Amino acid sequence: MATQISSPRGMRDFLPADKRRRERILAMIREVYAEHGFDEIETPVVEEQARLHSGMGGDNEKLSYAIMRRGLDQDALTQAAEHGDPLELSDLGLRFDLTVPLARFIASNRGSLPAVFRSLQIGPVWRAERPQKGRYRQFVQCDVDISGEPGPLAEIELLTAGAAALVRLGLEACTFRLNDRRILTGVLEAAGFPAEFFGAILIEVDKLDKIGADGVISGLRADERLAGHGPAIDQLADALAAWAPAVAAGVALERDAMLALLPGALGEHEGVLEAVDSLLYIANGVQAAGAKLPLVFDPTLVRGMGYYTGTIVEAAHPESGSSVGGGGRYDGMIGRFLGQDVPAAGFSIGFERIVDLVDLDALDGGSGERRHLVLLADKRCDPAQLAALKARFLEPGRRVRIEKRPKNPKTLLTQLAEQGYTHVAHVREEHLEQPETLELVPLSGN
Amino acid sequence: MATQISSPRGMRDFLPADKRRRERILAMIREVYAEHGFDEIETPVVEEQARLHSGMGGDNEKLSYAIMRRGLDQDALTQAAEHGDPLELSDLGLRFDLTVPLARFIASNRGSLPAVFRSLQIGPVWRAERPQKGRYRQFVQCDVDISGEPGPLAEIELLTAGAAALVRLGLEACTFRLNDRRILTGVLEAAGFPAEFFGAILIEVDKLDKIGADGVISGLRADERLAGHGPAIDQLADALAAWAPAVAAGVALERDAMLALLPGALGEHEGVLEAVDSLLYIANGVQAAGAKLPLVFDPTLVRGMGYYTGTIVEAAHPESGSSVGGGGRYDGMIGRFLGQDVPAAGFSIGFERIVDLVDLDALDGGSGERRHLVLLADKRCDPAQLAALKARFLEPGRRVRIEKRPKNPKTLLTQLAEQGYTHVAHVREEHLEQPETLELVPLSGN
Repeated sequence: MATQISSPRGMRDFLPADKRRRERILAMIREVYAEHGFDEIETPVVEEQARLHSGMGGDNEKLSYAIMRRGLDQDALTQAAEHGDPLELSDLGLRFDLTVPLARFIASNRGSLPAVFRSLQIGPVWRAERPQKGRYRQFVQCDVDISGEPGPLAEIELLTAGAAALVRLGLEACTFRLNDRRILTGVLEAAGFPAEFFGAILIEVDKLDKIGADGVISGLRADERLAGHGPAIDQLADALAAWAPAVAAGVALERDAMLALLPGALGEHEGVLEAVDSLLYIANGVQAAGAKLPLVFDPTLVRGMGYYTGTIVEAAHPESGSSVGGGGRYDGMIGRFLGQDVPAAGFSIGFERIVDLVDLDALDGGSGERRHLVLLADKRCDPAQLAALKARFLEPGRRVRIEKRPKNPKTLLTQLAEQGYTHVAHVREEHLEQPETLELVPLSGN
Repeated sequence: MATQISSPRGMRDFLPADKRRRERILAMIREVYAEHGFDEIETPVVEEQARLHSGMGGDNEKLSYAIMRRGLDQDALTQAAEHGDPLELSDLGLRFDLTVPLARFIASNRGSLPAVFRSLQIGPVWRAERPQKGRYRQFVQCDVDISGEPGPLAEIELLTAGAAALVRLGLEACTFRLNDRRILTGVLEAAGFPAEFFGAILIEVDKLDKIGADGVISGLRADERLAGHGPAIDQLADALAAWAPAVAAGVALERDAMLALLPGALGEHEGVLEAVDSLLYIANGVQAAGAKLPLVFDPTLVRGMGYYTGTIVEAAHPESGSSVGGGGRYDGMIGRFLGQDVPAAGFSIGFERIVDLVDLDALDGGSGERRHLVLLADKRCDPAQLAALKARFLEPGRRVRIEKRPKNPKTLLTQLAEQGYTHVAHVREEHLEQPETLELVPLSGN
């Protein structure tokens, strides 16, 4: 039984150094969002299956973990076997994101929440994906959302606060890439696609950075539903080809530059012009509010989730292959639970993607001055006296650790120095009676 | 669909005020334990079923939530139906405590951990209990443990740090009640019970504070396994009767007082004397290390879990009907996963029990001086200019919140004052151009 005892596949243990790092980064994010007026909430990690399979979660619904009903009897098992449907045996499931629980939370607690609600939610979510480098089955999401605000103030506050959080973490190299779903649908409309196919086409376009424009267009040509829409596909192919160099270079959020990228017919398309002006307004607002990150226009940005209705955004970082944050406006979603429409927008920092990019040492001005102390004690020292000695050195914010002296303490002291301990005291029996004679030696000097 | 959307039964949403309160209390606990040299770790909330059903979790194993295997096919369902065993369909489960995951964590990561490992683990656990006041199906546990230390230094450090955490939370009214499993078994031995029944008898004695001595003794007399052990039960009845007034008054941790409470024959019982001296040593050590909570001896203390092998402890608070913390030594447990024995002891603060006892206002000296600001804005204010105005007031640690002025702002401002906002600025269009004319009014004055 002693072999191969590990955590469940794709789920991680965090040892002290990792855990401390993660909690410090989360604390910084929490702090910035609190300053910007966001309130942290918490929902259970478990939701009812009916909510998790309402269609709002897209493909993630298929990846959700189901929890078995309690007290399942032979009859229930036999019935599920007859129907071939394991989900009949489940009433609850682990959440696969924080947005479905937020929508449920707002529906449940509407009477206790302000009309415009700025929420922060940080917590683990679960997806039964094939584990691979950088992709886990339990991972932390970190979402801010504003519900009840139909206007651009929501996007401006979300992006200003999101930028402040990223900058606080030292990720000034991030760029916000903005688009609006109404521009995308305008382009598809101008190309001549019927509206019923927009969803399917956008799913394909969303693969652009993975499979390239040629891959996207081949995919569309191979799609039987789009048979007979060859000319529309040709037009889209032209647009994608024209965008590629501009998007790679970064398109400024300026009206002329943006319109120049869109098919000519869209210069008078009401919805598209509205969306362009909305993006310009938001970008100017974010800059006027002091956000220290650049914003660019990216007409190819789709973001997978089907629920977005307007602005969409991703945060890109040069050292990360995929986006380090993203979000957008999703006005229809909360209404599905609540029965009455509530406008909403959100922004999520990709915590597992940024956690390795943050250089905590470079951020922690001054905290290195504190003296964290290791009492390296001779084996003969009396335990109770040792505990009393430790108590003498305790003070708020200083860590004090007793370690019994091994034959060769070098490895131990190196580990402790890595954990942030700065000083060591070599404790022998005589120090227990005369603690004032104990010398604190800087750990690096060992 | 709009009716009765609630969180899963027995699991709670936390609104901002509650969430803030819980996080602040957890931060204080974290801080104290870090000062005392404990390292925080994290394990996945999910463990493999084989670990969750190893027998170490006692009755809690029956209350655990099972997660369905992915990709269950008709065959698997039919087979489980034939065997009548729903657990065949499950490979993972939600953890029901933090101790089983800790034992698994130590077994998995032994090579990266110091020989003596002081861990802090805070996180949710799940039990499918009947929901009732103060009992939830998802709740937070908060455990410190020391593994690898066989001597009393472990108990002394755990109790000193635990006392410091409780005192930091303003719970100076707590008392630690101490006992040792070896004293309990000594008493049963002296009464004449065979060792094979000790476990069953202790489960009954553990109900003492709920059903009284008469209830315990009736239970034992009714137990068929104990038929023929009437005289032993009589002796135990005498002991329980003799202890009741002493325990109610609180037995000092002094050798004579403790021995006077035990059946005479135990005055020469080696194991019992060792345990008494161990408790005395620990109590003196904790006091010498500056713990500001009183310690008493409670020979009736059992603590339910079967895995305790020595010292056991509970923290009692006069305003709580049940204990607010507890723990003890469990030397055999980690070995079950690791295949080699590792001595260990732990202490757990009953977070859900203390969270309502803590008076944060009384603890927060000085934090009230900070000015948290509400910008109460006229509906005509331009959103981008409003966001820029907000940015002027942002500073580390200060919260700034934009709210659009409702017809009657009184309720809103009262809510915001409750959330800790201290000042309001009534923003009209002209302030956007001349922010220096904006006046910050204390919120209580509205």
